[in-house]
Amino acid sequence: MTETNLAPHRIDAQTTVCISVSARPTSIGTRFHNYLYAELGLNFVYKAFRTTDIAGTIAGVRALGIRGCSVSMPHKETVIPLVDTLEPSAAAIGSVNTIVNDDGVLTASNTDYLAIDELIADHNVDLTRPVILHGSGGMAKAIAAVLHARGADQVTVLSRNADTGAALARQYGFAAASDLPAPAEATLINATPLGMNGPHADALAFPLEHIRAAPVVMDVVAFPTETPLLAAAREAGAEVIGGDAVIALQAARQFVAYTGVVPTAEQVARAATYSRETVAAG
Amino acid sequence: MTETNLAPHRIDAQTTVCISVSARPTSIGTRFHNYLYAELGLNFVYKAFRTTDIAGTIAGVRALGIRGCSVSMPHKETVIPLVDTLEPSAAAIGSVNTIVNDDGVLTASNTDYLAIDELIADHNVDLTRPVILHGSGGMAKAIAAVLHARGADQVTVLSRNADTGAALARQYGFAAASDLPAPAEATLINATPLGMNGPHADALAFPLEHIRAAPVVMDVVAFPTETPLLAAAREAGAEVIGGDAVIALQAARQFVAYTGVVPTAEQVARAATYSRETVAAG
Repeated sequence: MTETNLAPHRIDAQTTVCISVSARPTSIGTRFHNYLYAELGLNFVYKAFRTTDIAGTIAGVRALGIRGCSVSMPHKETVIPLVDTLEPSAAAIGSVNTIVNDDGVLTASNTDYLAIDELIADHNVDLTRPVILHGSGGMAKAIAAVLHARGADQVTVLSRNADTGAALARQYGFAAASDLPAPAEATLINATPLGMNGPHADALAFPLEHIRAAPVVMDVVAFPTETPLLAAAREAGAEVIGGDAVIALQAARQFVAYTGVVPTAEQVARAATYSRETVAAG
Repeated sequence: MTETNLAPHRIDAQTTVCISVSARPTSIGTRFHNYLYAELGLNFVYKAFRTTDIAGTIAGVRALGIRGCSVSMPHKETVIPLVDTLEPSAAAIGSVNTIVNDDGVLTASNTDYLAIDELIADHNVDLTRPVILHGSGGMAKAIAAVLHARGADQVTVLSRNADTGAALARQYGFAAASDLPAPAEATLINATPLGMNGPHADALAFPLEHIRAAPVVMDVVAFPTETPLLAAAREAGAEVIGGDAVIALQAARQFVAYTGVVPTAEQVARAATYSRETVAAG
């Protein structure tokens, strides 16, 4: 799919603007949203911005009537006092990635939380059985909150960082571990960079013995789509949830929040594929 | 020329953003700039915004690194204390319509002033001879400042509003009048809405006797391109400067200030024609 398949952006004074802000913007969200605007014939435009000034950003969102503002690192927590309403998905983890502007009233949510919640529900993950959550960063916090909200109580938080791992486990009454427990049937969730393009690309987030005993394996790493963990899990016959699904679903949730229009699963999949093209290319 | 002649906007994280702000945005600037970006292959996008909050707007321009911000009514004066540097074109008339953001340093200018100055120079208007300037609003102020800076000293400011007309005349040592002097050879400049689409569309900004005695007639009304004044001036054989030339030249000056790229006169003319299409259509 090439860019020239898209209809020209017919930007005029009435075009609705959505943006994203982060310290290190990529083109993924910009391409995802603009692809769907063109495909669905919506008079919207989306643009990623680099900023270190979240207060000035939100002042601009209000002044200019910017409809949607996606928020990435390092602004997900510092933006909280600047909005008017915090939805449960953001309040649960103290982290915002989506702001909707309704005539000057800013409502903040977290579509990472919502996407993880939906994926765990859709894949019928049995949360009465053990779960091992690897990591203690932002995505691990969102996953822990979802697991807790869904009643999981046999969760072990595995983390190289004993402090943050223990704090996260304590928050939800989970166990903490800095070494893996012995292999046993347990859903495995990777929320570390292990397996991600870069220095950890070849790393397997869990040992093969654990993977072979897992009914479900989830990886939040989105680049590449097929991490060593997911490849091994597929090989072992486990149910697999990939990071590409998380990123596409959270973006689709933002799209619906900003536009009020629900794209089909096929449209979301095409937009997700399109959005990844330049990333893969360079 | 139709919109489908344009290449798709390839907006990504690196795309440079320029905006305009006013209380009543039109699509003219948005279409003018985006047309030239596409034609010249520049990774820029331009969007008009409606706002009543100029301080929040400038905070957003700084926070998001917005490269250019065009300013229209009612923000042309109130924006002055919010910028870092005022160029002579804006300082001369206390009015800003263009802000360039160089890595956080905001420089303000007025391309209406610059465009009027360039047109008067290009048309070799003889400023040692009498000039009658009709009007005392924002454009009249810019014209008076240009005339003064170019050494004109036989200028009469004609205004229904005796107070603002007298104040403008006094500022530059010009004469003020609320009634036209007797017909005599004088360059005529209309800076009132007389002849503009709407309730004054049929009004002639100067009497025919005056028009027939004028070597040069200038009209700042841009819609329609051919006002009753310009039609009569052409008929009488006067040199004519139209409001469409002012608006296109000031926009071209903004384009150069924002992008650093100088379009050809033909490209500017095509962009100006394109930018007027939806206005004419509705």
